[in-house]
Amino acid sequence: MSQSIVPNPDRLLPADPGTRSIARDLLKRVEDLPIISPHGHVDAAVIEQNTPFPDPAALLVSPDHYVTRLIHASGVDQSLLRPQAGAQGDNATPDSRVVWREFCKAWPLLEGTASGYWLRNQFQSVFGLQEEPSATDPDASYNAISAKLEEPGFRPRQLFTDFNIEVLATTDDPLDDLASHKAIAEDASFAGRVLPTFRPDQYLNIAHPTWSANVDRLIAAAGDGGSGYAAYITALENRRQYFVEHGAVSADHGVRTPRTLKLDDADAARMFDRARSGQASAQDRENFEAHMMYQMARMSVADGLVMTIHPGSFRNHHEPTFNTFGADSGHDIPFAIDYTENIRPLLQDFGTAKDFHLVLFTMDETVYSRELAPLAGFYPSVYLGAPWWFLDAPDAMLRFRSAVTETAGFSRNSGFIDDTRAFCSIPARHDASRRIEASFLARLVAEHRVSEDRAHEIIVDLVDGSPRRVFKL
Amino acid sequence: MSQSIVPNPDRLLPADPGTRSIARDLLKRVEDLPIISPHGHVDAAVIEQNTPFPDPAALLVSPDHYVTRLIHASGVDQSLLRPQAGAQGDNATPDSRVVWREFCKAWPLLEGTASGYWLRNQFQSVFGLQEEPSATDPDASYNAISAKLEEPGFRPRQLFTDFNIEVLATTDDPLDDLASHKAIAEDASFAGRVLPTFRPDQYLNIAHPTWSANVDRLIAAAGDGGSGYAAYITALENRRQYFVEHGAVSADHGVRTPRTLKLDDADAARMFDRARSGQASAQDRENFEAHMMYQMARMSVADGLVMTIHPGSFRNHHEPTFNTFGADSGHDIPFAIDYTENIRPLLQDFGTAKDFHLVLFTMDETVYSRELAPLAGFYPSVYLGAPWWFLDAPDAMLRFRSAVTETAGFSRNSGFIDDTRAFCSIPARHDASRRIEASFLARLVAEHRVSEDRAHEIIVDLVDGSPRRVFKL
Amino acid sequence: MSQSIVPNPDRLLPADPGTRSIARDLLKRVEDLPIISPHGHVDAAVIEQNTPFPDPAALLVSPDHYVTRLIHASGVDQSLLRPQAGAQGDNATPDSRVVWREFCKAWPLLEGTASGYWLRNQFQSVFGLQEEPSATDPDASYNAISAKLEEPGFRPRQLFTDFNIEVLATTDDPLDDLASHKAIAEDASFAGRVLPTFRPDQYLNIAHPTWSANVDRLIAAAGDGGSGYAAYITALENRRQYFVEHGAVSADHGVRTPRTLKLDDADAARMFDRARSGQASAQDRENFEAHMMYQMARMSVADGLVMTIHPGSFRNHHEPTFNTFGADSGHDIPFAIDYTENIRPLLQDFGTAKDFHLVLFTMDETVYSRELAPLAGFYPSVYLGAPWWFLDAPDAMLRFRSAVTETAGFSRNSGFIDDTRAFCSIPARHDASRRIEASFLARLVAEHRVSEDRAHEIIVDLVDGSPRRVFKL
Repeated sequence: MSQSIVPNPDRLLPADPGTRSIARDLLKRVEDLPIISPHGHVDAAVIEQNTPFPDPAALLVSPDHYVTRLIHASGVDQSLLRPQAGAQGDNATPDSRVVWREFCKAWPLLEGTASGYWLRNQFQSVFGLQEEPSATDPDASYNAISAKLEEPGFRPRQLFTDFNIEVLATTDDPLDDLASHKAIAEDASFAGRVLPTFRPDQYLNIAHPTWSANVDRLIAAAGDGGSGYAAYITALENRRQYFVEHGAVSADHGVRTPRTLKLDDADAARMFDRARSGQASAQDRENFEAHMMYQMARMSVADGLVMTIHPGSFRNHHEPTFNTFGADSGHDIPFAIDYTENIRPLLQDFGTAKDFHLVLFTMDETVYSRELAPLAGFYPSVYLGAPWWFLDAPDAMLRFRSAVTETAGFSRNSGFIDDTRAFCSIPARHDASRRIEASFLARLVAEHRVSEDRAHEIIVDLVDGSPRRVFKL
Repeated sequence: MSQSIVPNPDRLLPADPGTRSIARDLLKRVEDLPIISPHGHVDAAVIEQNTPFPDPAALLVSPDHYVTRLIHASGVDQSLLRPQAGAQGDNATPDSRVVWREFCKAWPLLEGTASGYWLRNQFQSVFGLQEEPSATDPDASYNAISAKLEEPGFRPRQLFTDFNIEVLATTDDPLDDLASHKAIAEDASFAGRVLPTFRPDQYLNIAHPTWSANVDRLIAAAGDGGSGYAAYITALENRRQYFVEHGAVSADHGVRTPRTLKLDDADAARMFDRARSGQASAQDRENFEAHMMYQMARMSVADGLVMTIHPGSFRNHHEPTFNTFGADSGHDIPFAIDYTENIRPLLQDFGTAKDFHLVLFTMDETVYSRELAPLAGFYPSVYLGAPWWFLDAPDAMLRFRSAVTETAGFSRNSGFIDDTRAFCSIPARHDASRRIEASFLARLVAEHRVSEDRAHEIIVDLVDGSPRRVFKL
Repeated sequence: MSQSIVPNPDRLLPADPGTRSIARDLLKRVEDLPIISPHGHVDAAVIEQNTPFPDPAALLVSPDHYVTRLIHASGVDQSLLRPQAGAQGDNATPDSRVVWREFCKAWPLLEGTASGYWLRNQFQSVFGLQEEPSATDPDASYNAISAKLEEPGFRPRQLFTDFNIEVLATTDDPLDDLASHKAIAEDASFAGRVLPTFRPDQYLNIAHPTWSANVDRLIAAAGDGGSGYAAYITALENRRQYFVEHGAVSADHGVRTPRTLKLDDADAARMFDRARSGQASAQDRENFEAHMMYQMARMSVADGLVMTIHPGSFRNHHEPTFNTFGADSGHDIPFAIDYTENIRPLLQDFGTAKDFHLVLFTMDETVYSRELAPLAGFYPSVYLGAPWWFLDAPDAMLRFRSAVTETAGFSRNSGFIDDTRAFCSIPARHDASRRIEASFLARLVAEHRVSEDRAHEIIVDLVDGSPRRVFKL
């Protein structure tokens, strides 16, 4: 049974009528504010070149591992959903109509999920659908979306404006020339800010298969003519500086654990040399990455890039799937993390450093009240990263607010982070976040814990002030 | 003060009037559906022989460690509550009237607990009491229940029908001859399905005191004439097949941790031999059990038995109590577990195996959003086990739904599992679960996250469709 | 914008009108009951000598690390907020007007926090302010509070009576002579009970910098003339006895982890000797502290002192801050703990000991449902410590009740613990706790899980009966 998807104006707001009424007023204060997206995965070249969007399946299904994972769990082979990594030939990429048909069949599986919410919202507000995708007539929604995608105005730059995006950060390889960012910045006809983000994981983590080759390229491209650990550090500093000069405001780190470690230069250099000659032990690999997190903090203190850490994901949990479909194919699984002990070496030396900003994310909710709120409630550098990945969903966002606010208040937050490569979902994600902020604050008002006037100030600060302040925008 | 126990028709439903009204309608869709109980601990012989129930205390108090534990915590010696294990003589088993008197005194301690809720419900709907048990007149409730127990119609088979049970799974020793199950299946006069479950813990865990003796019996009864590890594996396969032939749909594993490990046959055989000769190290014991979990998965892929895992309980925490009263005397205490790393070796090889079903339970709530929902949202084999043991309670069930749904939706659930040896509590437990499903869905409807029509479909699927699908019924 | 702080009579009560109405009635039953505070950090000498309170900043800001931490996080140097430890001279202690000005500027940061709630409540009900502190006119609130502090009746003893405090426990060094407690007890003109608490951390933990010196003093003051481990144990027993004779009802332990261990006397003595000669290994230090927890339990069984454990805080996380400002300066950060395995050796031997009371606290919420409720629901000695430190806040207290009640009911609770050195905040803290108990119970009534009559009994027992029973008052 296909259903209307006209969104209710009260969606996500609390059921209690009195609290809902307060929430509505709070939402009004922020629903039309510009979108600030300081961390995400949209490709800057798409904005620069104003590339037309591909077909509905290639746009909305195949690259979205939130969506394909649930379809896969229902028993559909991923070869019907996404291209095979590095494969060639007729069977390596599924036909878009086939993908869309599978998606329509699986659509009811998304009920109650964050992805389902965002998609329904997009279908209506971005693509103008009136009804949900239907398994009995998948072509109807496919054709309607396709028609929209072919409209001349339906291009990234126009949507950027229509979506009221003010700032959009991308995530970039340290050796990226940032030509797209430069071109966008120099284009007087386009008002949006598209900022690069320095993401050096594959240059810091010895365990990465291409680490040594990456280091070769890094030192060659940005070194000072020297070699070894010292040249490596200099090259990283230089590339960060290049990013700063091209508008970057932050450096992002997708580490396995939040461990940090201060080694002296000689020890670090010896470890680096062992790794370069393929002699690094498992312990070396862990220690070196932890040491490089310390070094990244040191560089952030020097160059002003906000440091963001995204730990705790067991990447590519199912090796056979990874071998066929590559990374980001739906089987990154979180595990328990410890910030209190792990982040301490970094905070000992930089926790109170002037203008240092460190945004800590987690998929392990247990650290919210136990570790992150206490850390962010003391260290001037530490900010609470918005609920991330699986936790970027209505109930999970409410649990986050409940867990951190009583210890850290409202001033220690990163602001909402959409962290998405799905450009068309950005408004839906920010809208959901704003509704949840309104819902949480409305309850505090209804319980006479925060005055209504103060709540109106707080929600504007959460949505607009926090990301500007924390990401130095 | 004794109180009426007439149940309110809105019990467990949300307080907000609008949400409650939606919940009432959802509940109507499922309240009369048959009970499907795919995992529990009722004794099949009791159904087969239609054994009269014992007295109120021996039926409702002594064997229920949920209840006796709280009475014990209040300072009552367990010798007044339950028989001593293996003891003989007048003092080894407390008088039923004494047990009941202690229970009536302790009754207010159960306020707010799941057990109190189930008992109050049973007292009214199964035993026809009008008032709560009273400490001042314990005989009143004792006599009323006794009178009911003596009614000719008050027998297991009649209640099975009255309770509207369609399927009831038991939990059985691998060498059980399953004669009761066979007799029930062949009895045309009884429509209920009573299915055995293969539970081999004491044959897999070297640390179990009778492991070696169990293995002797196993190989003798079901081996292929050989000896050693190969015969052991064959015997397990044969017994599983026997269970399949007698209607079993699942194999259950009560392991300490969810650790799994793939050993090659030669290593496994050496470890087995060391264990048989009493030379196994602590590490051997852990590795062998982890390896046998891998083997159980392999066999499940072959024979189709659904694999269920119940880890994370520190059994028999208080040794003096265990020495006197044996296992299941109220002091099994949960601890933190990790599924992401531990279950990976098993999922690497069998996670996407055709028709393999793996249901993962936990008493550590932290894994719901962090590990179980992400795993069940990717692997076609993995299902979220219903809230288990201490978590099988209204608020805990709501926390479960909130923690898993936004990541895994509603399609990756086992359906409700009562996991009980208390036959008369089965309707109350399923009723509570259905009310909580209605409550959770009603909130999502009230918040415009799921449409009312779709919620009506989902609740039927959760209550009726999921257990049939997941347990291959 | 400065705002009225007249408290709403429905503050903290649930938003749903029906549930709120039930909660109001429940609150009426307990709002005027006397305050029982069995664990806290007020100085007995202040009560004995009826010491006038210092100025507003020195009373309400500088010593309150809940407050200074958030101001510090906003970028204010702690030298503007609190005295430097051990420092002399003009700059070692900030001017009170300066502190207050910083506090007023930072006041909005406390919105939504527990501290903000308590302070607002005190400002109105204790100090008679009509408006919040204002950053534009900090002197207004400073002067108003100062005027109050100078009123002749505004002294500790009068407030003790005005606050309706019946029992207030302090926390004391084992060698304290307890002269203030004795004087108060003997003063017929003062009805309040002020009880000492035995807190021996610095005498048990070898890692403490003054441990050996403490042991010297302990053995000299309270030994039996002997030396070594045996004399140390005897001296501890003697000091506990001294505390018992001076009215103590409990001994408190601020340990890093809840680990316990039973060593035989010879091993313990050898470890003690190694520690005394500076030869203790890290393992020795951990084992000895764990062993001393076992010994403390043994002594509690003998002398009747209730044993309370507060583990899981990484004290003085930021060393530079500790070096300048000393302990309790806002950077104690919780981490994950495990009670199930760690507390077992103690419980094996004393878990069912007659009249032994063991109150377990945590800042790691994950142990509530997983470990603490199951332990307290079986062991007659174990009680659930009230939500502690960062968790002593409205939402966190509701999460606690939700997590423990369904397993352990309402009878296994310590009662509210304010754990504060901020004397003037005591009524606000107890008031908040009572409102949350009413809120939680009102929901259970509204959901027809507990009858209204029974809820009225339960709330009186939680607020008044539990602390009397658990702390043997």
